[in-house]
Amino acid sequence: MTSAPHGKVAVFSAGSWGTAFSIVLADAGNDVTLWARRPEVADAINARHENVDYLPGIELPPNVDATTDAEKALHGADVVVLATPSQTLRENLTEWAPHIEDDAVIVSLMKGVELGSLNRMSEVIHQVTGAGPERIAVISGPNLAKEIARREPAASVVACADEEVAKRLQQRCHSPAFRPYTSVDVLGCELGGAYKNVVGLAVGMAVGLGFGDNTTASIITRGLAETARLAMKLGANPLTLMGLAGLGDLVATCSSPLSRNRSFGEKLGQGMTTEEIYASTRQVAEGAKSCSSLRALAEQYGCDAPVARYVDEVVAGTMTAQDMMDAVLARDTKAETD
Amino acid sequence: MTSAPHGKVAVFSAGSWGTAFSIVLADAGNDVTLWARRPEVADAINARHENVDYLPGIELPPNVDATTDAEKALHGADVVVLATPSQTLRENLTEWAPHIEDDAVIVSLMKGVELGSLNRMSEVIHQVTGAGPERIAVISGPNLAKEIARREPAASVVACADEEVAKRLQQRCHSPAFRPYTSVDVLGCELGGAYKNVVGLAVGMAVGLGFGDNTTASIITRGLAETARLAMKLGANPLTLMGLAGLGDLVATCSSPLSRNRSFGEKLGQGMTTEEIYASTRQVAEGAKSCSSLRALAEQYGCDAPVARYVDEVVAGTMTAQDMMDAVLARDTKAETD
Repeated sequence: MTSAPHGKVAVFSAGSWGTAFSIVLADAGNDVTLWARRPEVADAINARHENVDYLPGIELPPNVDATTDAEKALHGADVVVLATPSQTLRENLTEWAPHIEDDAVIVSLMKGVELGSLNRMSEVIHQVTGAGPERIAVISGPNLAKEIARREPAASVVACADEEVAKRLQQRCHSPAFRPYTSVDVLGCELGGAYKNVVGLAVGMAVGLGFGDNTTASIITRGLAETARLAMKLGANPLTLMGLAGLGDLVATCSSPLSRNRSFGEKLGQGMTTEEIYASTRQVAEGAKSCSSLRALAEQYGCDAPVARYVDEVVAGTMTAQDMMDAVLARDTKAETD
Repeated sequence: MTSAPHGKVAVFSAGSWGTAFSIVLADAGNDVTLWARRPEVADAINARHENVDYLPGIELPPNVDATTDAEKALHGADVVVLATPSQTLRENLTEWAPHIEDDAVIVSLMKGVELGSLNRMSEVIHQVTGAGPERIAVISGPNLAKEIARREPAASVVACADEEVAKRLQQRCHSPAFRPYTSVDVLGCELGGAYKNVVGLAVGMAVGLGFGDNTTASIITRGLAETARLAMKLGANPLTLMGLAGLGDLVATCSSPLSRNRSFGEKLGQGMTTEEIYASTRQVAEGAKSCSSLRALAEQYGCDAPVARYVDEVVAGTMTAQDMMDAVLARDTKAETD
């Protein structure tokens, strides 16, 4: 087998986004090894080039293979892409870290903030692996996994504190359908990604309650303003939040019936409890966890964050979705930018 | 008949947005006189409290009446609301202006830029009536007319250079379902409103061509950045564009199948020509005119405006929607905020 023009990339793990992004990486000319926890998932990918669990019907390129052996996946990979649920990253990465090559760049596709520690994913990566900022990157944008897997055109942001590394990664994932832009604002991309899931939950609640596009557009506007306030307080560039990793990702999530967070919110809006929703689906809605983390982070920095606070209350069952909407929509009239 | 707690408002004219906003004004406690060009429209509103042409099935409040007599409509009205097509405002207003009360505040609900002169609607109002900035206001936000008419909750921005006037207008249109915020940035609100129709056309084209939510979210992001660039160059507050009259209005228009501009764009995306679309509908898509004005305005100020330029080409028939999408999506990869 001839090697791809780029090198080897290891992707953890074979969920829908990890698998879809493997297609991008393969199309861009990398050899991709996808790590799966369950042998039957890895075997099916190797035998039939299909992830029947998360992307049924999509044929994976020949330069994607799969393994359950983390050491094997990581051996020789100069780029490691992480796409696990945010709340289990620390535990998983602790297991994988010893096998990561010393100079490998570690890329987060994850959109969450760890409960308890309130760490962003890049911070967890640094703490667990010891990698410096020049080896840690984030890729984030309006990238619904199923559309990416179907090779519909999409743009995204590749952020690394070291601009040269961001540029190298940009080349590594630039495929005919996937157009990455570089940024040095890792923090802004991560907060945009985490917050959009929470705003997506709020929009879903409005949809579930029967509200129309005027209402959802107002929630999106207010949600992005809240995101930008917190991001600026933490030192991010506000332009990041107005770009693909902020506004773009938020609008894609809030528009799409494919979005897990919006769907989760819709069910809350229709009156289901969080427990009932968890019992009915195995997919993770990151926003249902990150709402607590972002609320706590905002409180820690003295930042007003009504959307995160109310979503957290509804997810916890201490407020109904209807009461949340009343509270969000019933602020006193005043100057818009007060 | 007892008078409403507020005074009299004249609304020109009885299209869908003018009629829907009359409901807001009536609910807020004003006596509303709606001017209609055609006697049968005015008669039906007075006799059956319904605008069968533009808002069939919606019952208008008892404190809305209609007339075809502009002088009668304007007599005693201390607020005059204008909701005509942008390109005919100058001609219409010239006819009405002599009857406007000397101290009346004139409010634009219009979202366009005049062809040729490149004037915004507030500028046309000033030129035709001689009113100063303290008598000219704009109301703009995520306000799809049919949802407003159904009294679904919505927020909006009331902008006037004179903040006290903005606050008085805010009280005049604050109804249980309609929540206005004040602003002094008339320019920003007007550019946000005009540009969102053009971006709505571009998003419609993408939808008509079969693109998904990742693509439309990217166009929205790029379109708002283009809007903000031009608005800042002209002296607007960038925060206005990130608020209800910018981002909010844009997202509502781009999300809604009710939007005329998005629908117009969808038909262009499906391969219909502008002439064919005009022949099939009598509703005006403001963006199909404003794309030329905004393109010219951007050129005049040396501002890069690919979305306005390409939309203008497609509307004019000098470029296909598919070529436009290729051009918009195929920019060189670079840093996002370059």
